[in-house]
Amino acid sequence: MKLKASLIQHHHQGSRAANQQYIADQIKLATQQGARLIVLQELHDHAYFCQTEEVDHFDLAEIIPGPSSQFFAALADQHQCVIVSSLFEQRTKGLYHNTAVVFDTDGKLAGLYRKMHIPEDPGFHEKFYFTPGDLGFTPIQTNIGKLGVLICWDQWYPEAARLMALAGAELLIYPTAIGWDPLDESAEQQRQLAAWRTIQVSHAISNALPVLSCNRVGHEPSPRPDAPGIDFWGHSFVCGPQGEMIAQADQSDETLIAEIDLDRTETLRRIWPFLRDRRIDAYAGLNERFLSMPQRSTS
Amino acid sequence: MKLKASLIQHHHQGSRAANQQYIADQIKLATQQGARLIVLQELHDHAYFCQTEEVDHFDLAEIIPGPSSQFFAALADQHQCVIVSSLFEQRTKGLYHNTAVVFDTDGKLAGLYRKMHIPEDPGFHEKFYFTPGDLGFTPIQTNIGKLGVLICWDQWYPEAARLMALAGAELLIYPTAIGWDPLDESAEQQRQLAAWRTIQVSHAISNALPVLSCNRVGHEPSPRPDAPGIDFWGHSFVCGPQGEMIAQADQSDETLIAEIDLDRTETLRRIWPFLRDRRIDAYAGLNERFLSMPQRSTS
Repeated sequence: MKLKASLIQHHHQGSRAANQQYIADQIKLATQQGARLIVLQELHDHAYFCQTEEVDHFDLAEIIPGPSSQFFAALADQHQCVIVSSLFEQRTKGLYHNTAVVFDTDGKLAGLYRKMHIPEDPGFHEKFYFTPGDLGFTPIQTNIGKLGVLICWDQWYPEAARLMALAGAELLIYPTAIGWDPLDESAEQQRQLAAWRTIQVSHAISNALPVLSCNRVGHEPSPRPDAPGIDFWGHSFVCGPQGEMIAQADQSDETLIAEIDLDRTETLRRIWPFLRDRRIDAYAGLNERFLSMPQRSTS
Repeated sequence: MKLKASLIQHHHQGSRAANQQYIADQIKLATQQGARLIVLQELHDHAYFCQTEEVDHFDLAEIIPGPSSQFFAALADQHQCVIVSSLFEQRTKGLYHNTAVVFDTDGKLAGLYRKMHIPEDPGFHEKFYFTPGDLGFTPIQTNIGKLGVLICWDQWYPEAARLMALAGAELLIYPTAIGWDPLDESAEQQRQLAAWRTIQVSHAISNALPVLSCNRVGHEPSPRPDAPGIDFWGHSFVCGPQGEMIAQADQSDETLIAEIDLDRTETLRRIWPFLRDRRIDAYAGLNERFLSMPQRSTS
């Protein structure tokens, strides 16, 4: 089965309303070209507000369903496409998640994925805003297939991709917001971009699943005068289940369209049957934090 | 700390004696250039005998210690280097393993790793020859560091690399013997090579560890008249803990020398602290074969 997917990579447009209008326009264009799956970037309705820790930013969060989820539900229904949106979810007073909300081709809520791995780095203060997800690594069933939706920092964890594959995901999907420290030198920036691409492509390979990664793009200044802001690096991509690149963006606003052959997963798993040979009798240590006792350096 | 490592990639030289002589010559040259870690390719003493299932091939196996392990032990002692060898181990009558045997800089046996994931594909009949390892994913302590030695098919499993990292490995090392079906078209061959490189580089990235992968090279015909043999694809490589390529071979006999900065692991784990955020409360499913019940196709 062939599936046409679209990834909408864009700069922050200045406001929630402007971002939603931009996305609505792009979804219309993408579905006119046959896209039945739309993937949006992480926290697409807002500037990346986690550069600093501000209690007022919790005002951006919405109960689901709420005005924003209803907006994307209506778009999914109107254009008969699945939409993977990325919202700042208020679950109750004082409890917030970084949540992918998936709408089916009839506009109904297909399911939620609450980001499981939460980063915390200078400029990325997500542990302040987001409670780690408690829905596990559970694919979301839609009319176009079973979606293994993960979010940003999750992309560095092969455990997350594997668990989605074992739970029957047919696609791995990453809304993401990753960028460079403008003060880093160019060689370091390029290593980071290459590492980011490689780790996600590796999840395609080890699980024989297509990977779709939609990243934010553009410079967003920090509210702190002593911080350089973030250069979100774009480079959204779609690769097939052998890691073969199907479509990739650069560092500008771009709506990618990619045709994915979902039948290749079975073909590849027959020639490289990794799932057959997993040593599940010997993986218990994966549930531990670390397995080695402190020791003197050997050097 | 800087470590100079050498990977000896070569064609099968026609006999065990010829292979051992070739390796001895290359180790001498590599250690003269400062290499303190030598990585050999998988089953380097022999043609890749797993293309067919022949009971007589079990004659190639040796008890450890035995003549071959003593040969490499003496080389390690003579050149004061660690050698990661890859031997066909006879454990007792009728019980055989695909085993990496590591010798320390004084020639003493540092430890064994018995290949955990065993492939079985046309031309790669390893399940006939090798009992899956029962030593787990346990790094081997040497005078130059703690080595996470894995073998060939293991390289496709992020679980194996992660377990080595959690057990304190400072380097990930893959003796391997992988090649193309000569009948596959060139585009497929290139996708396979790229996937093989990507998956191993991804283990470097997700664990912030250097990866050293030493592959066999050259065409080896099949004993079966109806089989095309294997074009072992070489392309041995060393990458750093961010996935940055340090040295790589092409498709000829080549002894790679690479200088590895072991201090970069700590630097990288500070800026991208993946180990900090693993969701060990949610990884139990990794110990299962599959997590989804049979279902009708959704398409």
